[in-house]
Amino acid sequence: MLLGMREDERVGRITLAQVAQLAGVSISTVSKVLNGRQDVAAPTRAKVERVLDDNAYRRTTRAAREAPLIEIVFHELESIWALELIRGVEKVAKANGASVVLTESGTRRAPGPEWIEGVLQRSPRGVVLVFSALPAEVKRRLRSRSIPFVVIDPAGDPDPDVPSVGSANWNGGLAATRHLVQLGHRRIGIITGPKDMLCSLARLDGYRSALSMAGLVADPELVRYGDFHVEGGRERAAELLDLDDPPTAIFAGSDLQALGVLEAARLRDLRVPHDLSVVGYDDVPLAQWSSPALTTVHQPLREMAEGATRMLLRLRSQEPVATRLELTTSLVVRQSTAAPSFERVSDTPCG
Amino acid sequence: MLLGMREDERVGRITLAQVAQLAGVSISTVSKVLNGRQDVAAPTRAKVERVLDDNAYRRTTRAAREAPLIEIVFHELESIWALELIRGVEKVAKANGASVVLTESGTRRAPGPEWIEGVLQRSPRGVVLVFSALPAEVKRRLRSRSIPFVVIDPAGDPDPDVPSVGSANWNGGLAATRHLVQLGHRRIGIITGPKDMLCSLARLDGYRSALSMAGLVADPELVRYGDFHVEGGRERAAELLDLDDPPTAIFAGSDLQALGVLEAARLRDLRVPHDLSVVGYDDVPLAQWSSPALTTVHQPLREMAEGATRMLLRLRSQEPVATRLELTTSLVVRQSTAAPSFERVSDTPCG
Repeated sequence: MLLGMREDERVGRITLAQVAQLAGVSISTVSKVLNGRQDVAAPTRAKVERVLDDNAYRRTTRAAREAPLIEIVFHELESIWALELIRGVEKVAKANGASVVLTESGTRRAPGPEWIEGVLQRSPRGVVLVFSALPAEVKRRLRSRSIPFVVIDPAGDPDPDVPSVGSANWNGGLAATRHLVQLGHRRIGIITGPKDMLCSLARLDGYRSALSMAGLVADPELVRYGDFHVEGGRERAAELLDLDDPPTAIFAGSDLQALGVLEAARLRDLRVPHDLSVVGYDDVPLAQWSSPALTTVHQPLREMAEGATRMLLRLRSQEPVATRLELTTSLVVRQSTAAPSFERVSDTPCG
Repeated sequence: MLLGMREDERVGRITLAQVAQLAGVSISTVSKVLNGRQDVAAPTRAKVERVLDDNAYRRTTRAAREAPLIEIVFHELESIWALELIRGVEKVAKANGASVVLTESGTRRAPGPEWIEGVLQRSPRGVVLVFSALPAEVKRRLRSRSIPFVVIDPAGDPDPDVPSVGSANWNGGLAATRHLVQLGHRRIGIITGPKDMLCSLARLDGYRSALSMAGLVADPELVRYGDFHVEGGRERAAELLDLDDPPTAIFAGSDLQALGVLEAARLRDLRVPHDLSVVGYDDVPLAQWSSPALTTVHQPLREMAEGATRMLLRLRSQEPVATRLELTTSLVVRQSTAAPSFERVSDTPCG
């Protein structure tokens, strides 16, 4: 029986019967709560969960599921990252004989109660969450059922309490800017992401450090905050390119922002990379399809998802496991960067 | 019990006991076959499946699954279509209280046996397949378990035997070409997809008809076959642009091919749309992020996936349902098309 268990089943430190007694409910109610059934009143469920939590209940004798599942949950699938992450989870899941269940939580904030009920019912081997902030309630409910979970956190803001996988944002910002400095650029603009995301700030700090290591000072006028989307990139690039002393290179904080920079340049008849060098961030597939193909910082999204899924499976097997994995980023040089050309200012005579 | 059934259970026209008798096996063997268990010898399984098939066995009394699943299976997730299709399935699944299981069959041809075993074990409400050709074996095994399936077939080559959802390729080719004709173009090139895909041929025929309706003749030199990828688009566009009498507009058979055309134009210092108009096909998100944003034929991928999932649920409820759905395509005009400029030939004097 997939969802059943015996009354005297001893699971971790406490039996079902003891949980029932402590919570003052029947054993069948405890079983319903454990199995994520809907027909338990909320206060009763809360009472049972408190007992499970207080007693570090761990269900260790569950019958092996015939068709094991691994869940991946997104705020929204809109992101161009989504497919890369799905592919990473799918690869490791398949190698371990599991299938991938995909859920879009449907809000920009945190997974809702309807999502968590579904997980408890499906009883997956584990859950990969693509969120930065995970509500305490979600953590507690997953833990009370011994369902391991790992957060993929490209925003670089890990909850110390939650196993997570991220990537090295500061180093990415450093590498992008250093590349432009080495090409000979001195006026380098940056369009980083939103001010309230740690990854934006880390990339910006990497940019500042690269400039400072080259003896350059970051001109505050050349620092802009975008939204990680094309539109923000286009608007911020327009501001930078319309300055009296515009930059000869722009480090865009994401590939989508870099596409916006290309569009702003095209509208001003500036050729990339001849008149303007552009560096992206992420290295999603469209970076190589762009015209010109983008020099960008490769964020190993697929490997991050693979790492998260492997971490999940190790957590489940209760092997000792590092619960923060940070993967390295690397610069990929393509066609959108070159040494600065000074034609725009030096105006050579015709003929 | 999720996977169990009673021996006298009458399912469709025939009972389990009758199936067992006809196949000359035990009832428990029939039950194992129905549940996709691995511990049945292949010849025995084949025998049982033949009986199930011959007797139009339909399992109608299965206990409601606690956490219903809908499966979506891809050859490969590499495609930029994948995410749009996933989102369509996810939307309808969620509205029907189901979760989405995602499988990559891992071959470029058809889903393998390991995939189908997984489906039979999970016993989903239905399966959306993103394939053109479905092996008879897969059809038979899904049918013998009464698991409905629908094929999403953007390649336009539906198997008459299988419920499917496609889109209007001929009309798309017509609309794209007509738009260019109406802008005043007379030398219009086309880079359609591979020669062996019906959707390529349908788009090409739409192109020819639009030209012919405008009293123009399709110059065979301006017709090229690509691979639906960026690289093919770039190479075929290079051939077209290097002709003695190059086209003033190119209808690329996919958005990725259109990006290749943009790159070929950039490398020749041709400005789009001033010197060359470009029309894509598909309208995947990157079409609007490209610089310039692509005029393209919108293929309603998300709606196709939604339609397929709804068809699946109707098939399951045994409502009468049309088993071929063809959605309309529509032209989306953005920045990559304009009236032809004849500057390249007319060389106005300076000043």
